[in-house]
Amino acid sequence: MSSADGAGSVRALVRRRDGSVESFGEDALVVEEPLEVRLRDGASEAVRLLVTMRTPGQDEDLAAGLLFSEGILESPEELLGFSRPEDPSLPPELVRNVIVARLTPKAGGRPLSPRHAGYVSSACGVCGDLSIGEVAARAAAARRRAGAGKREGPVVAASLLSALPESLRREQALFRSTGGLHAAGLFEEDGTPAVVREDVGRHNATDKAIGSCLRARRPVPPILLVSGRLGFEIAQKAALAGIRIVCSVSAPTSLAVELAEETGMTVVGFLRGERFTVYTHPARVRAGG
Amino acid sequence: MSSADGAGSVRALVRRRDGSVESFGEDALVVEEPLEVRLRDGASEAVRLLVTMRTPGQDEDLAAGLLFSEGILESPEELLGFSRPEDPSLPPELVRNVIVARLTPKAGGRPLSPRHAGYVSSACGVCGDLSIGEVAARAAAARRRAGAGKREGPVVAASLLSALPESLRREQALFRSTGGLHAAGLFEEDGTPAVVREDVGRHNATDKAIGSCLRARRPVPPILLVSGRLGFEIAQKAALAGIRIVCSVSAPTSLAVELAEETGMTVVGFLRGERFTVYTHPARVRAGG
Repeated sequence: MSSADGAGSVRALVRRRDGSVESFGEDALVVEEPLEVRLRDGASEAVRLLVTMRTPGQDEDLAAGLLFSEGILESPEELLGFSRPEDPSLPPELVRNVIVARLTPKAGGRPLSPRHAGYVSSACGVCGDLSIGEVAARAAAARRRAGAGKREGPVVAASLLSALPESLRREQALFRSTGGLHAAGLFEEDGTPAVVREDVGRHNATDKAIGSCLRARRPVPPILLVSGRLGFEIAQKAALAGIRIVCSVSAPTSLAVELAEETGMTVVGFLRGERFTVYTHPARVRAGG
Repeated sequence: MSSADGAGSVRALVRRRDGSVESFGEDALVVEEPLEVRLRDGASEAVRLLVTMRTPGQDEDLAAGLLFSEGILESPEELLGFSRPEDPSLPPELVRNVIVARLTPKAGGRPLSPRHAGYVSSACGVCGDLSIGEVAARAAAARRRAGAGKREGPVVAASLLSALPESLRREQALFRSTGGLHAAGLFEEDGTPAVVREDVGRHNATDKAIGSCLRARRPVPPILLVSGRLGFEIAQKAALAGIRIVCSVSAPTSLAVELAEETGMTVVGFLRGERFTVYTHPARVRAGG
């Protein structure tokens, strides 16, 4: 691997093969590195960690979105700020992979989700039904806090949905060079793109997009489009952020559909050109055009 | 969602849209549910957990592969068996999402990786270089234990690699109905498919394929093909299992390529028809045919 090539890719020397013809060349690789998020609540020196493999860039957005998805942050006000570690023993090239989040004591005291808490001292009953019930309750609480408890809308035209993938692609500069990045886009009710974020992981791209709104203290737009499959974890992030229409160019999973049913989100899958499939709450897609 | 439709999918009622034409119908959704792996070392009643979102089916393979990837199992002999929980308070529909792994005391005492250990009491320095060094050391140790320390081979023809995706697809019955499942296939040196596993997640599909070999106490075949992107975690699983050629129909990431370089694996990306790209250790792909 040689020189860095913009924020999210590096160049690599490769051998290409096409039948019996071999050639040598350069290829752009999407950068994947771990991000270690350290949590500090000011009151103690104890440090807790979240680690995610991500494409560097907009780490603050990613960390904010991740902390919100994990239920550690309940509101943007609980996030006091980010810094890079000042540990002089840490080599400079590693400093870019560690970020320190300063939280209010209340947020700093919230437990990590069972998914991240690898060690537990007794059986803790993780299961589909429990997870859905818990996420639905957290999502309802999040909507109440955001004053959007009664926000049912929007109702959109099919043509608005059909235009989203092209709109997302226009914002994706990196994808064209590496072929390896996922994107998540948040769109306003009229289809205007509000935030688009890219990452090697769909989950991270979603966290970055949502986290960007949290950090700017602006409402999370009501429509999300992800470039890959729609699984439970992305549906969970969307539900907690108060998103009402979740779209994917690919397939949703059973648990994502169940969660959306329960939390009142509209799921649109296989969004490709003028075709798409609505899995839940279809009233938000206007009949006839 | 209505009736179950084979192991990995359920039927859902949907609304389809094609331009201004709307129709109602049924769609097959890939099933995603959490699997909670409980670890018991016999010596204590303490239970530790790993949780992964997965497509039900071959849970034992998945759990075995996951425990191996996480470094909790170093050899198949350390896995004494699996059972389902006997807790009568657990509803039957949840029993299918919990599996209990009985381990030797030595394996039961190994720590989970930092990625899964959400809480730590002091800074623990997760970083790209450290991770790669650690995985490389673990992979070398695993190869020594497997008596394959000097296994350099195989050297394969380009035509053998080109035939792998079609071979993988032939084994994938589920994909055709849901469009949402990833696959991982292990192939022998001559291209014969040995194990193919599917899951909503590429990581799980890889763990299932490797775990299936571990449980059968057979050597892990030297060639792996995954249906999606090749990131660090899949490269890590492959390296630990002693796989020598890792292929993807899509792009590898920077960290996957670095790890493969370090551990002596050949990475083949964008494997599509007669075309592919070799990123590392190209000597395993025969020149000219």
